[in-house]
This record gives sequence, C-alpha cells and structure tokens, in this order.
Amino acid sequence: MGRVNDLILEKAGSDVDMIPEVAKHLIDSGGKRLRPMLTLAAANMSGYGKAEVNGHVKMAMAVEFMHTATLLHDDVVDESDMRRGKLAARMLWGNQASVLVGDYLLGQAFRVMVDVGNLRALDVLSTAACVIAEGEVLQLSVAQNMKTTTDDYMKVIRAKTAALFAAACEMGPILANSDEAKILALRTYGLELGNAFQLIDDALDYGGSAASLGKNVGDDFREGKITLPVILAYERGDNDDKAFWRRVMEERKDVTDGALEHAMGLLRTSNALDDTLAQARAHGEAAIKALDMFEDSAYKSALIDAVAFCISRAH
Amino acid sequence: MGRVNDLILEKAGSDVDMIPEVAKHLIDSGGKRLRPMLTLAAANMSGYGKAEVNGHVKMAMAVEFMHTATLLHDDVVDESDMRRGKLAARMLWGNQASVLVGDYLLGQAFRVMVDVGNLRALDVLSTAACVIAEGEVLQLSVAQNMKTTTDDYMKVIRAKTAALFAAACEMGPILANSDEAKILALRTYGLELGNAFQLIDDALDYGGSAASLGKNVGDDFREGKITLPVILAYERGDNDDKAFWRRVMEERKDVTDGALEHAMGLLRTSNALDDTLAQARAHGEAAIKALDMFEDSAYKSALIDAVAFCISRAH
Repeated sequence: MGRVNDLILEKAGSDVDMIPEVAKHLIDSGGKRLRPMLTLAAANMSGYGKAEVNGHVKMAMAVEFMHTATLLHDDVVDESDMRRGKLAARMLWGNQASVLVGDYLLGQAFRVMVDVGNLRALDVLSTAACVIAEGEVLQLSVAQNMKTTTDDYMKVIRAKTAALFAAACEMGPILANSDEAKILALRTYGLELGNAFQLIDDALDYGGSAASLGKNVGDDFREGKITLPVILAYERGDNDDKAFWRRVMEERKDVTDGALEHAMGLLRTSNALDDTLAQARAHGEAAIKALDMFEDSAYKSALIDAVAFCISRAH
Repeated sequence: MGRVNDLILEKAGSDVDMIPEVAKHLIDSGGKRLRPMLTLAAANMSGYGKAEVNGHVKMAMAVEFMHTATLLHDDVVDESDMRRGKLAARMLWGNQASVLVGDYLLGQAFRVMVDVGNLRALDVLSTAACVIAEGEVLQLSVAQNMKTTTDDYMKVIRAKTAALFAAACEMGPILANSDEAKILALRTYGLELGNAFQLIDDALDYGGSAASLGKNVGDDFREGKITLPVILAYERGDNDDKAFWRRVMEERKDVTDGALEHAMGLLRTSNALDDTLAQARAHGEAAIKALDMFEDSAYKSALIDAVAFCISRAH
C-alpha cells in the first residue's frame, strides 16, 4: 500500500497547479483505500506480486483514481456540501474544477492501466467505468419516485458501487493469469462485498453519525434518493405512512428536520433499517463463501477481514 | 464515415433510457464529425483500411465520443445555454445527466479502443484525455485575468483542442505500423490544424453569426474567457482601452450588449481579429506542410481540404 500511495501522489501531479490541489484535497482526506487494498490482496492471493513486478500496484492506483474521479463528479451531481467529513472539493474550487479534475484523474487511471499493458484488465476496468456511469444515471431516473422496487435499487447499487469492487478484485487473478474459476470467484467476492458496502452506507445515512460516515445523516433523505430502507418502510407502511413518504420523497414538500425525525422513526418501527443491515450481512456472507476455493493465507484473511470491516461500520 | 456513424449510434445505446436520449441530442445535432474523418483519412493514407479491417472505424468512433464527452462536460463548466444551434443538453436534462452521460461516453470510447487492442494507440488517446482535461483546468485558472499572455493562450488551445486533433490523426499511421517520421508528421498536421481550428473559433466568437457557429456571438466575452483577439487588443490599446478590458473581463462589471459592441469595435480597429485570423492561416499552412512527405492521393487531398474548411469558416 505504501507503493500505491506513492504512485497516487505522483500521478495526481500536474504542471497545472489546481489539479494536484483539488486531487490531494480528496486523496489526503482519509479515504479508506479499500478498493486498492482489494486489488493488492487479490493479486497476492493469486500468486502475483511475489516476483519483482508492480502491475498490481499500478492497477490498484488506477482503481483508486477511478473511484476518486467518481466522487468528484458525484458531489457535483448530488450538490453535496461535505465529503469524508471535509468540505466537498466543489465547495472550495467550484463545480467546474471538480468536473475537470475528475476527468483528469480518469485519464491518468487509463494511462497507468495502458502502461501495465494487460488488455483483459483494461477491458474489465473500462467496462466498469461505463457500468458505474450507467448506474449513476439510473439512480437519477429512479430518484424521487416511490414506485422504485427493491430490484431497481439492487440494479443501481450493483452498477454504481459493486461493479468497481468486482473489477478491483478481478484485476488480481487476471494479472496472475489464474484460471477462469478463480477469476469468477474473486469477481463474485468483490460484487457481493460491494453490495454489502452500499447497503450499509445507505442504512448509515439514517443512523450513523456524520463523523463515522464523513457526511451528514439524512443526506439521501434531503436529496430524495430512494434507498432500500425507504423502499421497505414504504411497502410496510399504512396509508398515512405511504402519503408521508410520497410527500417528502416525490413532491419534496416539508423536507424538514422534523420530517427526517419522523422518517427515522418509521424506518426503525417497520424494521426497515434492521432488514437492510440483515441483507448487507447476507451479501457479506456470500462474499466470504466465494473465497472457499482458495487456500488459507494472510491475503485470504485480509479479504475476509474486509467484509467484517464493511459490516462493522454499522455499529 | 457511414460505418463510423453506425458504430456511434450503436455505442451510444444503453438499457438506461436517459443515456441514448442525451447522447443522441448532441450526436444528431449536426456536428461536423471532423475528428473521426481525420482518423479515417490518415489511416487510409497510411495504407491501413485497404484490407478487411475496421480498427480505424472503431478508433474514429472513440475519438468522436471523447470529443462529445468533452462537449457535455464543457457546457456544464461554462454554464452554456446553446450548443450547435440547439439548447445545450444540460438545459434539457440538467447538469447531472450531462456530467454522467459524458462519463459514460468516455468509458465507451475506452472500451472500443481496448477492443482494437493496439496499446500504442491506447496510450496516445489516454494521454490526450489527460492533456485535454489539463488544458480545460488551465483555461479556468487564466480566465478573467488580463495578464494572460499569448503563450498562456497557445498552451491552453494546444491542450484543450489541438491535442485531440493530433491524436485523431496519429491513430492512422499507428494502426498501419508506419515509420516514426510519418507518425510524427501526421501528429504535427493534427496539432497545427487544431490550433488553426481553435483560433478561428475564438475569432468567430466576436464576429460570426450564431447560426454558423451554433452558439451566440459574445459567449467568450460574457464568460470572461481571455482569447487571442482580446489579448492582442489589450496589448495594443491605450490606457482607456486597457481599463475597459480590465473592467469587463476581470471585474466582470458592465458586461452589457453595449460593452460587447464596444469590444468588437476595439478588436476591429486594433486589427486584433485580422491578426488572429492570420495566425490561424499560418497554423493551417504548417499543417499542410507537414503532409509534404506523403504522395498525392485522394486521402491527402481530403486532409488538405480539411484545413481549407476550417479556415473558411471565418468567411
């Protein structure tokens, strides 16, 4: 990870001063570096990285840059004020710089991937870039619509979040020329971990503290973002509850702190939050199960710990 | 070009309806498809494309998608209302969709490039993606600053515009495995053509009709964008003229239609517009000169015609 961090700082550089300023604001803000860690662990577990190679380090950096670019663009799209407990870059340098520095980091990610020269890895990551953007657009189209189903929601989080986790994990065995079963297994692990991660994130939005999440409780509520807790509470609500959800999420009326309090009450009493966490745990277990075919090792333990880490954020 | 257009429409597709809607709004709006035409002509002139291959068609499509993605993001960055004589996508679908559909098209461009599988071509285009973003950020940092020099300006347009023209042209000989001298010659052609193209664009902003440019006269003026005509008029102005330029471009005060009229008068009387056009012609001649080493052919004529086309937009 030390080598990944060095490469991240190097590749965030540019003669145009504003680029490293904006990029480093986000890079230095205590992100968990979860995705590049997955790439390294999956590569090492697959037998890559024992020799004097650094393809996995470069791919890990590229994955983190793709993620950082997505965050910069997301904050513009969501009009967010906060990110990782700090002011969002767009609040300091404007939407313009956030869009363009995101584009720059995406370009740098591709350059480094091209430098590694593995066409299959390039295919997986460029496909992930498309799927992520598709997921974000899909999220826009289902926003503020209480007809959103659990299926719609799962489609969104699979695309916008789990696809990059899956690609990050798949990089390892692809670089190591592993057999297809192992590539699929690590892809499945990443996909399920990504689903669990996003489910926890969406539950935390109605319960965690701003400190642990790095953003404000109720952000999704204020944006009219329809997440699983809301879908479950709506399904289970009586007519008054349904009318409340439609008023705040669809008509965007009376979206006050009092309404957020009321919403959080409904999420608790309907068990919507608990059931969201239960679904996250189930995806976490599926992630761990996908690792069955691999022998025990420090790297496998790290991947299992990553699941526990994601789930434990809820407590 | 028919095969390029078919591929453009195919790859702009997605199960998420909003993506093809937004993408096609821009793709169908009568863009000149200049960049993909350059890729095809350069490939054919280099002897690629005679056999049953379509790498150049795919690369041409990827180049056009990179350009389209840039336009979608630019309109958000510049807060533009119009693009190619129609409402900008962000006015119809919002900034959010423009950012995300831009990201999707960029991802699709990379997927198609990866599919062609030429690592050098991938390196050139991913580097161009970075350079373009750097140029746009540089443009932000020099905006509304009358200390901007001709050198600063040339650096911006080389990065934000000419780099993609250069990469589009370089694709051809790279796919054809041409020798380095020919690759460099076509890169130089593209770079000089791109410089000429942007100089003409920046002159037209103070003189063309909205119809021929597809946007409104005075957009750069209203955004405080410092282009060569303004730099020259400022250098050549007396104290009153300099104070005027600082007031409207830096302080952004009294940016009225009357001020635009006054600015256009200063640009004419100082010969700033004429000299900008002269510089564009000089870059156009340098582009044509770079083609000297190639034998005469219909493809070489097409590349020479492209220069004439770009320059003639000013009339």
